[in-house]
Amino acid sequence: MSANKWTQNYKLKQSLYSKNKHKQGTRGNFKGNSKPRSRAVEPVKKPPVKISFLGGLNEIGKNITVIECNGDMVIVDCGMAFPDGDMLGVDLVIPDFSYIEQNVDRVRGIVLTHGHEDHIGGLPFLLSKINVPLYGTPLTLGLVENKLREHSLVNKVKLNVVNAGSTIRLGCMEIKFIHVNHSIPDSVAFAIKTPGGTIVHTGDFKIDCTPISGDTIDLSSFARVGDEGVLALLAESTNAERAGYTPTEQMVSESLDNLFKKAEKYRIIIATFASNVNRVQQIINCAEKYGRKVAFSGRSMVNYMDVASKLGYLNLPKNILIDIDALKKYPPEQIVLVTTGSQGEPMSALSRMAYSDHRKVMVGEGDFIIISANPIPGNEKSVGNIVDELLKRGCKVIYESMYDVHVSGHACQEELKLMHRLVRPKYFIPVHGEQKHLRKHAELAEFLGMEKKNICITDIGKTVEVCDDHMKVTGTVPAGKVFVDGLGVGDVGSIVLRDRKHLGQDGLIIIVASLDVYDGHVISGPDIVSRGFVYVRESEGLLDEVRKLALSILEDCAEQNIHEWGVIKNRLREEISKLIGQKTRRSPMILPILQEV
Amino acid sequence: MSANKWTQNYKLKQSLYSKNKHKQGTRGNFKGNSKPRSRAVEPVKKPPVKISFLGGLNEIGKNITVIECNGDMVIVDCGMAFPDGDMLGVDLVIPDFSYIEQNVDRVRGIVLTHGHEDHIGGLPFLLSKINVPLYGTPLTLGLVENKLREHSLVNKVKLNVVNAGSTIRLGCMEIKFIHVNHSIPDSVAFAIKTPGGTIVHTGDFKIDCTPISGDTIDLSSFARVGDEGVLALLAESTNAERAGYTPTEQMVSESLDNLFKKAEKYRIIIATFASNVNRVQQIINCAEKYGRKVAFSGRSMVNYMDVASKLGYLNLPKNILIDIDALKKYPPEQIVLVTTGSQGEPMSALSRMAYSDHRKVMVGEGDFIIISANPIPGNEKSVGNIVDELLKRGCKVIYESMYDVHVSGHACQEELKLMHRLVRPKYFIPVHGEQKHLRKHAELAEFLGMEKKNICITDIGKTVEVCDDHMKVTGTVPAGKVFVDGLGVGDVGSIVLRDRKHLGQDGLIIIVASLDVYDGHVISGPDIVSRGFVYVRESEGLLDEVRKLALSILEDCAEQNIHEWGVIKNRLREEISKLIGQKTRRSPMILPILQEV
Repeated sequence: MSANKWTQNYKLKQSLYSKNKHKQGTRGNFKGNSKPRSRAVEPVKKPPVKISFLGGLNEIGKNITVIECNGDMVIVDCGMAFPDGDMLGVDLVIPDFSYIEQNVDRVRGIVLTHGHEDHIGGLPFLLSKINVPLYGTPLTLGLVENKLREHSLVNKVKLNVVNAGSTIRLGCMEIKFIHVNHSIPDSVAFAIKTPGGTIVHTGDFKIDCTPISGDTIDLSSFARVGDEGVLALLAESTNAERAGYTPTEQMVSESLDNLFKKAEKYRIIIATFASNVNRVQQIINCAEKYGRKVAFSGRSMVNYMDVASKLGYLNLPKNILIDIDALKKYPPEQIVLVTTGSQGEPMSALSRMAYSDHRKVMVGEGDFIIISANPIPGNEKSVGNIVDELLKRGCKVIYESMYDVHVSGHACQEELKLMHRLVRPKYFIPVHGEQKHLRKHAELAEFLGMEKKNICITDIGKTVEVCDDHMKVTGTVPAGKVFVDGLGVGDVGSIVLRDRKHLGQDGLIIIVASLDVYDGHVISGPDIVSRGFVYVRESEGLLDEVRKLALSILEDCAEQNIHEWGVIKNRLREEISKLIGQKTRRSPMILPILQEV
Repeated sequence: MSANKWTQNYKLKQSLYSKNKHKQGTRGNFKGNSKPRSRAVEPVKKPPVKISFLGGLNEIGKNITVIECNGDMVIVDCGMAFPDGDMLGVDLVIPDFSYIEQNVDRVRGIVLTHGHEDHIGGLPFLLSKINVPLYGTPLTLGLVENKLREHSLVNKVKLNVVNAGSTIRLGCMEIKFIHVNHSIPDSVAFAIKTPGGTIVHTGDFKIDCTPISGDTIDLSSFARVGDEGVLALLAESTNAERAGYTPTEQMVSESLDNLFKKAEKYRIIIATFASNVNRVQQIINCAEKYGRKVAFSGRSMVNYMDVASKLGYLNLPKNILIDIDALKKYPPEQIVLVTTGSQGEPMSALSRMAYSDHRKVMVGEGDFIIISANPIPGNEKSVGNIVDELLKRGCKVIYESMYDVHVSGHACQEELKLMHRLVRPKYFIPVHGEQKHLRKHAELAEFLGMEKKNICITDIGKTVEVCDDHMKVTGTVPAGKVFVDGLGVGDVGSIVLRDRKHLGQDGLIIIVASLDVYDGHVISGPDIVSRGFVYVRESEGLLDEVRKLALSILEDCAEQNIHEWGVIKNRLREEISKLIGQKTRRSPMILPILQEV
């Protein structure tokens, strides 16, 4: 559908921030070249649009939004999140998909804003249950395809490439893909035209007037959609606490250039996000300028660069790339190694280098290491530890805000304000952020003149109904955190985590005994086995006390004809727990195991 | 000893940064009023000073330094550290005291710079093993006394109050207590005059020209010591990465005043460090100005304020203080609640308020909450979570850098430079910091003109020998992290932690069986018990497979006359681990327990 058609057959009443209603309405008519508005052509009663959040509110990650109108359902993104520190042993966190599964007949498709894990990482888990067509830009779907291949899902799912600027129809909805700037190329926002009104979902974005590749965010499309009237804006809130503008990615070029000069006699190692193709492009450009070869280290770096270069998002000068195994063929000062691990991830390439655990790269005094990323909240400590290890090995390390070697991919306050002013929605729902980000973004909208009642800070599991005359939370849908641990999806829940936490904090003591099937007397044991409790060799006395207490309890139960194992085990747990508490002020898990012989 | 005497009988050759040697020598003579120097009065060969680090280098916390000369030993500080995330179940971390215990006869005393946990928290554990006199300022010893009382050590140890400005003699060493500014009152640095030369240890400090109480750091004493010649400077490095100056604590006054005005109709709750007496003083001053009562919440807040007010470090207007139980007697807008929990500590008062778990305080829309502290690296996430919870409950929350409600207690680069210029040591050892802080501080000293060979970045467990003509690492002493878990000190080591980590990440599977003592056949079991592995009710099939495999292994061993339990257990572990890995891609701890019947 051409932009013109989009403009012409769409005559929603303009929903503007009340203050500017008249003025902007006029401007809308002018820019959109649409016919003069009159009350007569308006529909009597439009259907409501229902927006349900399965992720991305009050959390960072697993972004997924369900938009419904007239029974049709469209899903925006399907992300995963990384586990918090208290989700022991959990590999990743995905949304609860029950609501989608229960309504699979109504799902018209999944539209994807961009290829970051928090927007596409949940797909394999949803698509292994239901089959739904996907719509995304070329790079996004390239990354999705890789991911589906790993899960043997690639031939099952229909991937529909949509270029930014195009519009698709899914059921009763027309979805325009609008180009935005972000820290991965080919990112888009959506203007979803429904019979109930237009919903704009920004996805993740920033405004970069001088991007490394591709165009500046498509401001005119946002403006045009705004001119035509937007019922509700869903805009990301990641940087809503930060004043001003996010600097252009170009700024990093200059810093890198300076550092390459400074590092003249060193091998250069740069850690950054594997998905930040433009950042890697800048590194490659610098490498070319200073006559260095480039090698990639880390599985995800290799994978992303593979997809990005195949699809033409990475411009690789001839012969600049070398395999990591070929590093030794070149003098260090002719090398740039681009690696994962900028967040201090324990198994990443940079981490293994720092702890001398990398099979192919040894770092030392000849290395100039640049961490081209900021620590994501929660990772500060592990990044700091890696920096320390690298410094101890004599490396030069450029980290955090020492130099301008990183810019964010998210809009700061001034950019968010511009988005609001371009789109001029009637209603606003801040998305993608913790409570503090959502609140700050809501305050920002109020500051721009929006009425408080037209702003909704909501949560995952909530359904918000939006109409011309109201926006309200009308119901709930199943939502939460589903844990993936190894091959298991959802089989680790609160009980398992509680046990893991208990075991991890205090360890355990196992009491094993074989009891006579007839009279309950002890035939073998009790044996005491402990793990993670005390250093056993130095605590034999204590464990011996435990054994004696257990024996006396078991014999006492036998004497008293107590044969219910539940009762006996409870006594063992309680009394041994008390003894251990008195002696050590610790509370290991006490696990009595009885066998009948 | 008067400052004058100190100056007169001390005629070390001045050790200055080479560049300025002549000029500063002259100035030294002028200011110190000492006799003209001549080579004739210098001693032939001075004894070396040995400095051993048991904590505080390459780590934040557990600061403790041992200084020796002519066989006498003086200990500077005796701190603890908080456990890292990977020290599961550990309550706190203390230094390895072996070196001190082995040389207890030579220990002349422990001198304390200030009353923070990372400088005094290790004392009870050391003093329960050896008895050594303590020397500190009134507030520091007041806090130490409280701590010793909790450990029933208060009558055992001799506490010697020394006021800032005074000098004490311990063995062959004369130690001058020099007043410094920091985030707790009554902090001092030490100038330790030994027969081998003077060592200056700054402790923690900042330069505050307008402190809330007490004087500005005693610049003139540092200058005078510098004039007389300093062999080595040990200076803290916490903020060595930060350019400029740390702002004065006064700045917080202004911000607090503004916020009190803004919060006119709210109850005010302020979280800050319990030890920051001056911060609390400012809060009290604001409360008085705006006609509010003050209550303290949190055990450590109550304890610190108790000691501080008894010793006169807290100026409490009459009737301003109320008990937390009396909160209900006053309207919310007449209350300020000062609480612990500014670091998001899970059991702290603020955390309990945020999660509706506080017995006496319920927070909600009527609350204006100020977090008057920055998150210490590693605590960002937990502070963020608490802010989110408070916001969800409708509280107004002022956090982090939103307003200037916190200043650091540590010197930034410009202050560190001033300290170096005042003290003008021959040698420099950066202390109190991770590798990155130590390096940055060393770079700063180089920038100031110090020769690289006169700077030593070292580590805990190292002994540095300092003489007029050299500084070098000459040996090692036992040092490390000793874990305190409940009543146990040092009984949790790497094996226990490894097990805790394994159990916490993956849970465990126990296989129990009773075997015939004669032929090894299974008499009872095998029973499978799991914890923290999978949700058992949904995984019965898998656990049944494990049971069948275990049975077949045990019977197979019996058939083959394999009776060595080590061998049987290994087979169980290996094969069951393999099965579980294939089915789940997880690796729980496998614990076979066999009993003979």
